[in-house]
Amino acid sequence: MRFEEIAKRVKSASIKTASLSSDIKKNILYTIAEALQKNSEIIFKANEKDLNENKDKVSQSVYNRLKLDENKMRDMISGIKDVAELEDIIGKVLLKRELDEGLVLKKITCPIGVLGIIFEARPDVIAQIISLAVKSGNAVILKGGKESLNTNKEIFNVIKTALKQFNEYPDDAIVQIFTHDDVNEMLKCSKYIDLIIPRGGNKLVKFIKENTQIPVLGHEAGICHIFLDKTADFDMSVKIITDSKTQYPSACNSVETLLIHKDFENSDKLLKALEINGITLDHKPEQWDYEHGDKTLAYKYVEDMNEAINHINTYGSGHTDCIITDDNNNAELFKKQVDSAGVYHNVSTRFADGFRYGFGAEVGISTNKTHARGPVGIDGLTIYKYELEGNGQTVKEYVTGEKQFHHKDLI
Amino acid sequence: MRFEEIAKRVKSASIKTASLSSDIKKNILYTIAEALQKNSEIIFKANEKDLNENKDKVSQSVYNRLKLDENKMRDMISGIKDVAELEDIIGKVLLKRELDEGLVLKKITCPIGVLGIIFEARPDVIAQIISLAVKSGNAVILKGGKESLNTNKEIFNVIKTALKQFNEYPDDAIVQIFTHDDVNEMLKCSKYIDLIIPRGGNKLVKFIKENTQIPVLGHEAGICHIFLDKTADFDMSVKIITDSKTQYPSACNSVETLLIHKDFENSDKLLKALEINGITLDHKPEQWDYEHGDKTLAYKYVEDMNEAINHINTYGSGHTDCIITDDNNNAELFKKQVDSAGVYHNVSTRFADGFRYGFGAEVGISTNKTHARGPVGIDGLTIYKYELEGNGQTVKEYVTGEKQFHHKDLI
Repeated sequence: MRFEEIAKRVKSASIKTASLSSDIKKNILYTIAEALQKNSEIIFKANEKDLNENKDKVSQSVYNRLKLDENKMRDMISGIKDVAELEDIIGKVLLKRELDEGLVLKKITCPIGVLGIIFEARPDVIAQIISLAVKSGNAVILKGGKESLNTNKEIFNVIKTALKQFNEYPDDAIVQIFTHDDVNEMLKCSKYIDLIIPRGGNKLVKFIKENTQIPVLGHEAGICHIFLDKTADFDMSVKIITDSKTQYPSACNSVETLLIHKDFENSDKLLKALEINGITLDHKPEQWDYEHGDKTLAYKYVEDMNEAINHINTYGSGHTDCIITDDNNNAELFKKQVDSAGVYHNVSTRFADGFRYGFGAEVGISTNKTHARGPVGIDGLTIYKYELEGNGQTVKEYVTGEKQFHHKDLI
Repeated sequence: MRFEEIAKRVKSASIKTASLSSDIKKNILYTIAEALQKNSEIIFKANEKDLNENKDKVSQSVYNRLKLDENKMRDMISGIKDVAELEDIIGKVLLKRELDEGLVLKKITCPIGVLGIIFEARPDVIAQIISLAVKSGNAVILKGGKESLNTNKEIFNVIKTALKQFNEYPDDAIVQIFTHDDVNEMLKCSKYIDLIIPRGGNKLVKFIKENTQIPVLGHEAGICHIFLDKTADFDMSVKIITDSKTQYPSACNSVETLLIHKDFENSDKLLKALEINGITLDHKPEQWDYEHGDKTLAYKYVEDMNEAINHINTYGSGHTDCIITDDNNNAELFKKQVDSAGVYHNVSTRFADGFRYGFGAEVGISTNKTHARGPVGIDGLTIYKYELEGNGQTVKEYVTGEKQFHHKDLI
């Protein structure tokens, strides 16, 4: 089948998933969780096949991500149950306003429609994405990494089979595609696909952003900064910088650049302490907008906070940036003037995460300036529509002045 | 100056406008209104020049839109004062959550950053846009239509001169550009421009959407529908359809297609009544997704509501669609399953408008499925950032289990 035909069917299915009741969606999610539990042996077998086929082709870290063990399976299943228990975010009345007598406007949350989700090695992501799609009433087209092909197919089949018992749930609402050609078609298909979410490395995200006119939710790079003000506490600084750089260096919310106020005392002592903690310092990086992905930290002395803010707004990626200071006025100014999704005071940049923020589920982290910014919870998969209810009103009467709007909010 | 250099300065200015106080912004807007009042004679003269230069080149309707008379000037000035009086939408705390003791997350509204606004003939739009930008703390790059060049320049100069008394307001926050080359550069400049808003015809919007990777807020077409259910009231139907088609036929929220349930009685009588009211009926349109812009109305009989909904979701533009029915169950289903920004029951499609919805100011009408949908008020020019305040917390303690998040909402 041509991709466009598939996409058209998914779009059509999305109209049905949009009006599923909260109870049905919850029920579906528990059924999916149960089916995965029951069929875990088949899924492990498929995963073994992927591991065997790829063990000589991929790095150890990719291999580890590819491997689906008992622990990951358990987390995957409990993750689906967590999503099932989230409050339904669809059908919420955001505004109810009487425009005039008998003319009532409601603004109501609804699904975005069709999501296109492209993800890399981790096979447990597929179940997470499907559960978020079901809960939010969106339809979804999935493209997984080729390394986890067998595992993805098996998880997908188990879920699709479980979904068959629900007549209300349209078969085309969840579709998997496999080829690069299909991905290229998907990126062109703005007529039927409403949002693309890439879950993978910078290269993937960059490629997608440059090759589609469909809105993309995600981030290319995480160039996070810490500015050490002159009044920064020494011990706190060592602790925060070490955590931000070393706790998980390949994460997007790890710090890449340290900006030190020229009047900060003990900066030599600080740099030594960081080296002792395993950090490799780089005073002359080739470029300031580089994501190391390891324990390398670029650093630079600045004249004042203003220079630090300018540096961050110039070289940063708008992800997460932190000031360490005892001066609350400076902290306020920094948080106002740094144009990033996360502006932190005296805490590790590693907190930028949907689960740590208490969102229950994370769709991704966005450095966009529209729709959703920062860690995005399931509400990032929603938009709203306006319902207007009347009894024959026409605009003419309001233009001639025969009638007037009174705009009375009812909630 | 190269366009990129200009855009860089505007971006830098946007950091300053983001933290202006509510009082200053209000003060600035009243000062602008006063300055326009004082200098209205100079502006009228510039407008006369535009009218003289273009009277043989443009249609009567463009000429009318181009003409700035006393009434439009008065509306323009009172519009600025209205925006001044709107509640400040920046700095609102949307969420305040204690993640753990002494670790507090806030989600706070902020401006998007730099807006690129491209508008056609109406010169009064420039003052409206500048007032919305000032109020929302965004910086803005403006490109007006060539027909209103002299008027735009004069209004712009009056406003810029008025702004000079405010030291806090950066000179680069509002910039006007004039050439198509600059527009093309702007569309490429995703590094410094965060949102493009085209205010003009379909061709303009289509061109922009196809030529930029910057998010675009707007709509290409307004293909609005009315579905006449079998239980529709006859008189109400005539009244609503007539208003939706004839009250202002070139508006995007005018109806283009009437879908009639095959069991609706008196459909012949209805069509005759519509013709008497000045509507030209078209039973065999070449295409169903055509925006007439005049009093032509395409129509079609459908088997049932399902066919109507499918027709709307296939050929509509997701703008505004209406059902006329006495059957509330059908109305509910229609509103749920029609995937449009506005879903109406028993009212004219012409109500789709920011002022009629009581938004105080209208940025545009969006058919996007992300960020802002339908008539967009000034809050469509905002996004949010996350502030995290702590006293040295690191992620390590939470990963090892030494500490746990408790996620306590404080508002």
